[in-house]
Amino acid sequence: MIRFDCDYTEGAHPNIIAALSESNFEQTCGYGEDHHCENARAYIKKAIGCESADVHFLVGGTQANMTVIASILRPYQGVLCAESGHINCHETGAVEATGHKVLALSHKDGKICAKQVRDYVATHWRDAAHEHIVQPGMVYISQPTEYGTLYSREELKELYAACRELELPLFVDGARLGYALAADKSFTLPFLAANCDVFYIGGTKVGCLFGEAVCITNDALKRDFRYMIKRMGGMLAKGRLLGIQFEEMFRDGLYFRVAEKAVANALRIKAALIQKGIPLLMDSATNQQFPILTKAQQATLGEKYALGFWDTTGGERDAIRICTSWASSDENVDALIADIMAL
Amino acid sequence: MIRFDCDYTEGAHPNIIAALSESNFEQTCGYGEDHHCENARAYIKKAIGCESADVHFLVGGTQANMTVIASILRPYQGVLCAESGHINCHETGAVEATGHKVLALSHKDGKICAKQVRDYVATHWRDAAHEHIVQPGMVYISQPTEYGTLYSREELKELYAACRELELPLFVDGARLGYALAADKSFTLPFLAANCDVFYIGGTKVGCLFGEAVCITNDALKRDFRYMIKRMGGMLAKGRLLGIQFEEMFRDGLYFRVAEKAVANALRIKAALIQKGIPLLMDSATNQQFPILTKAQQATLGEKYALGFWDTTGGERDAIRICTSWASSDENVDALIADIMAL
Amino acid sequence: MIRFDCDYTEGAHPNIIAALSESNFEQTCGYGEDHHCENARAYIKKAIGCESADVHFLVGGTQANMTVIASILRPYQGVLCAESGHINCHETGAVEATGHKVLALSHKDGKICAKQVRDYVATHWRDAAHEHIVQPGMVYISQPTEYGTLYSREELKELYAACRELELPLFVDGARLGYALAADKSFTLPFLAANCDVFYIGGTKVGCLFGEAVCITNDALKRDFRYMIKRMGGMLAKGRLLGIQFEEMFRDGLYFRVAEKAVANALRIKAALIQKGIPLLMDSATNQQFPILTKAQQATLGEKYALGFWDTTGGERDAIRICTSWASSDENVDALIADIMAL
Amino acid sequence: MIRFDCDYTEGAHPNIIAALSESNFEQTCGYGEDHHCENARAYIKKAIGCESADVHFLVGGTQANMTVIASILRPYQGVLCAESGHINCHETGAVEATGHKVLALSHKDGKICAKQVRDYVATHWRDAAHEHIVQPGMVYISQPTEYGTLYSREELKELYAACRELELPLFVDGARLGYALAADKSFTLPFLAANCDVFYIGGTKVGCLFGEAVCITNDALKRDFRYMIKRMGGMLAKGRLLGIQFEEMFRDGLYFRVAEKAVANALRIKAALIQKGIPLLMDSATNQQFPILTKAQQATLGEKYALGFWDTTGGERDAIRICTSWASSDENVDALIADIMAL
Repeated sequence: MIRFDCDYTEGAHPNIIAALSESNFEQTCGYGEDHHCENARAYIKKAIGCESADVHFLVGGTQANMTVIASILRPYQGVLCAESGHINCHETGAVEATGHKVLALSHKDGKICAKQVRDYVATHWRDAAHEHIVQPGMVYISQPTEYGTLYSREELKELYAACRELELPLFVDGARLGYALAADKSFTLPFLAANCDVFYIGGTKVGCLFGEAVCITNDALKRDFRYMIKRMGGMLAKGRLLGIQFEEMFRDGLYFRVAEKAVANALRIKAALIQKGIPLLMDSATNQQFPILTKAQQATLGEKYALGFWDTTGGERDAIRICTSWASSDENVDALIADIMAL
Repeated sequence: MIRFDCDYTEGAHPNIIAALSESNFEQTCGYGEDHHCENARAYIKKAIGCESADVHFLVGGTQANMTVIASILRPYQGVLCAESGHINCHETGAVEATGHKVLALSHKDGKICAKQVRDYVATHWRDAAHEHIVQPGMVYISQPTEYGTLYSREELKELYAACRELELPLFVDGARLGYALAADKSFTLPFLAANCDVFYIGGTKVGCLFGEAVCITNDALKRDFRYMIKRMGGMLAKGRLLGIQFEEMFRDGLYFRVAEKAVANALRIKAALIQKGIPLLMDSATNQQFPILTKAQQATLGEKYALGFWDTTGGERDAIRICTSWASSDENVDALIADIMAL
Repeated sequence: MIRFDCDYTEGAHPNIIAALSESNFEQTCGYGEDHHCENARAYIKKAIGCESADVHFLVGGTQANMTVIASILRPYQGVLCAESGHINCHETGAVEATGHKVLALSHKDGKICAKQVRDYVATHWRDAAHEHIVQPGMVYISQPTEYGTLYSREELKELYAACRELELPLFVDGARLGYALAADKSFTLPFLAANCDVFYIGGTKVGCLFGEAVCITNDALKRDFRYMIKRMGGMLAKGRLLGIQFEEMFRDGLYFRVAEKAVANALRIKAALIQKGIPLLMDSATNQQFPILTKAQQATLGEKYALGFWDTTGGERDAIRICTSWASSDENVDALIADIMAL
Repeated sequence: MIRFDCDYTEGAHPNIIAALSESNFEQTCGYGEDHHCENARAYIKKAIGCESADVHFLVGGTQANMTVIASILRPYQGVLCAESGHINCHETGAVEATGHKVLALSHKDGKICAKQVRDYVATHWRDAAHEHIVQPGMVYISQPTEYGTLYSREELKELYAACRELELPLFVDGARLGYALAADKSFTLPFLAANCDVFYIGGTKVGCLFGEAVCITNDALKRDFRYMIKRMGGMLAKGRLLGIQFEEMFRDGLYFRVAEKAVANALRIKAALIQKGIPLLMDSATNQQFPILTKAQQATLGEKYALGFWDTTGGERDAIRICTSWASSDENVDALIADIMAL
């Protein structure tokens, strides 16, 4: 069985394993204050073009989301996000566990827009009973979205302009950020860093064993973030494990290369799906593709491949998720393409 | 600089690194449902002599503590623990973050006893205003304690008898459990499993990169624990990383061997301290030793070794923590002993 | 200015004031354990036809909602409710403040149905990733709803049958329960008590100064509820104030008479609105009516009456809320009707 | 049975009942925005000598404490208070329910001092592991304390100077504030308002039916406090009930007269106890007195009076609480004194 069901089916890029192996007997202090973490932070600040950023390494995405959000919001505030957002759908209420409501907006291809945020905020404050309603306190988006789609430069700029005007911090979940950067070269890390208040660079799904690098660019949001990490159970004793991985990823661009290869393979699969006339749920430019397959097609491919079930679409068809990653070999991708074409 | 300041200054036992390396390209499902986790669970159930236990792998100790405690308590209940307990002192309020008060009892060498628990509970229910007071809902201890001391078999049995009688689940934090098992061979994993309701086997400080194996032996506490893990941000996407480590540790007893060596080295250091006439804060039988050193002694040793500051003891002396681990080489221990004897 | 904008614009039914005045110098113990509370509990148990119920008096509706919900749910569970539900819209995230997600279902006239609950639960458990999704843990409805509409006997029975089958406690918010009972005489308190697990009889909006009587009929939900009340800040020191009010309300049926008069007046206003050809947002049978008025009509009535703004409906019209209560005098209602007819 | 066991055994000062009765048919808006609340706020601002203060009315003390504390602290911060503080002992973990640890300091006669706060904060920041420890974020005291004792002007000034220097907001719980003001005329409301950041004037225990007036004098703590009240379930629909009571209390000094009479009666009882040679647990100057009575004395007085049990003191004696209030008649106090003298 060849797995294409998600982008965390293998361990990590071999360079990561090698780096962990080589550094294994080094003695360092704990909790992310070692020299590997320092190096990784320096590389990342350079990569995002923001020397003043605070960079923290967390183990996973849900942890990063809940820690950042709980750190920003006042108790009576909620976080605006797309109805399809990860924090709204797939984190078992981790944000609510911190006492905050997720304020879900309808989405288009997994995205929300500046106008929706402006309207929501205006409606809130216009309501005579606004004190009885959760106050919008920040905005959360993902790049790429849950559907593999992308915010364009223009869309993000408009959204961030609205956020600044409304004094709502903008937080970008980048669990799969590498794939977005690979898919749209005009959307760079420095551009992102300049157009939000806090974001993270996902490692777990982009070649690391685990790890998310939270970058806080807004000075007002930096204070005592390490206390927050510890309080939320997210402070890794051997913090160096995160430092070593991100050092490896950002020393000379491995992060970008890993993502590029995965996206290239995904686009090859996409091309095959289109050529074969198989409809796509979304027009995704990243490492996740969502073909709508008949039960028969699912059964045929299912003999050889593990694919992800995404959603029912009615009738005899379902939306299926196909993911590539650093670990998808060209051979396996070729095989899948051949089998798609043979459907 | 040779570090003896804590037991997480290196990576992991080389077998762990090798296992991660070998398994790196295997494809597995995520979230701890892969075959490595299954194997590790099977090994652990055998080692603890409890086939009916539920075993879950978490990344770190604070996360394990808050998840277990929040899973057990009703909202208005608190957790009884020693004033010196980790959850009371060094987790930045992670338990309170879940809405629960830590009910601190005075400790003797880091330990609490059955009588204290009985008295506390009796006092609570006797108070006419008991509904205005946090209700004791469970008991938390560590084996070994923060001071490296141990609960004897008899002490644990008495404590657990009290807990059962009072219907308070007993939770044992085993962040350094291996060292306790190595120090008192009569106190085995099956004995522990039979004398509490939930405990964890610490990996982070006993040779793993990270990881704690939570063992729930009381059926009433098992339900939906995986929901709790996810809700608290503790569900590792590549859960196999935990499975692979504990598989390695429990396949043929590596966990015990790692701990034994560390304890043996710690006892050699302890013997030197005693021989030299240096007072000890506690009579620890495990991998942590707490000599009381003069400022001059600290300065002399500090030229070559990183030791942990533990507490002021008044005057010119401080309690210092010396930790050994799987990674403490005999050479380094020999050197430290020689330098202690030369003080 | 004559107010019809809500049902809490005056103090309390004069009998309540008289009872508070008469009992003022009595000495009693605190926290709801006095003889007035005992009497009130006895009257209520009789009225609801459930001697085994636990009855607790709380000050307000949001407090009652959050205390009941936090008492029932496990940490990773959420509460199913109509999108228009009070807990979802107008409690500033009080439920989320206790760590739980509100799982909003689309509504029809403010109501949800058994099928929606069954479908939601089935979908949850069918999802391979269900551990990553908040688990439905209970169901919340209001009788009457936010729109003044009513669950019929049949609808409630079906909903409760689904809840029992799915093991989801059913909680009925009765902030305006009296008006529902007055509007549908077949829907009695004993019927309600037999068809949910916990509900409350609202006093604040039905003639009391304040107060909600929470009735827990399901034994499994009774334990330690007074601890919950105190922990949530809802334990009134002079609990007798609540007892005295509910004693007065339920000694000889004042609660029902108060509600009947308000509903009768509301239906007179409704008849006038219909006769005049003014559209209604909902077909409400209770003390709240929602005419859709032009801006001009609003301005005309606004010279003499305070009415509640409810919602924009597009164009030149808005949905307006007109509320009656125990305190709406026949004269004021007559005047309003005349002015409606003169529009 | 004549009750002296607490200060909330009767309803309210008759003027309060009269005012509620007189205003009963007035129509007002809800949620504390009516003219009675406006008047009461104006009276209170004048009484505390701080026109810029924000004044909010809450129903009870635990609710006031948890709302103020949760409003001030960042998630990883705790509140410093005396070990004997109400929030630490008698609120069923309401502060922890909001996610915050109570950082208990040893007390002297129920009080903490500036030096303790300075030392605690210095120790925190000096600790290399301070990020693993709950950060002190504010200070909570009560005036009078749980033991009826008082902070002198000098003590409060020193404490507040320390707080300002350390940037810790100082919150004064004034559940029985009236009695403190009556006992030490040099300690005025304007003095208090000038020497803390937020405090409340307790009504429940000083002549009202219920109600606490929270006064926020520090501008930085004012924002969105009404959202907090609603989110914590503390927003009273008929907020006017609180306004009417505080209007009555502060229109022409009723609050002070009520407290003075209670304190005068308490001091008469205290004099009798001293004259009789009965030891006192604390030298209280306020409406609560704590004689240490033998079991026999308790039994004798217990035939006629309800007294409060306070604490065991060892042997055959217990500390007993005797409370006076606005409602303690001179006759009853005379009778108690006679019976004490006859012991």
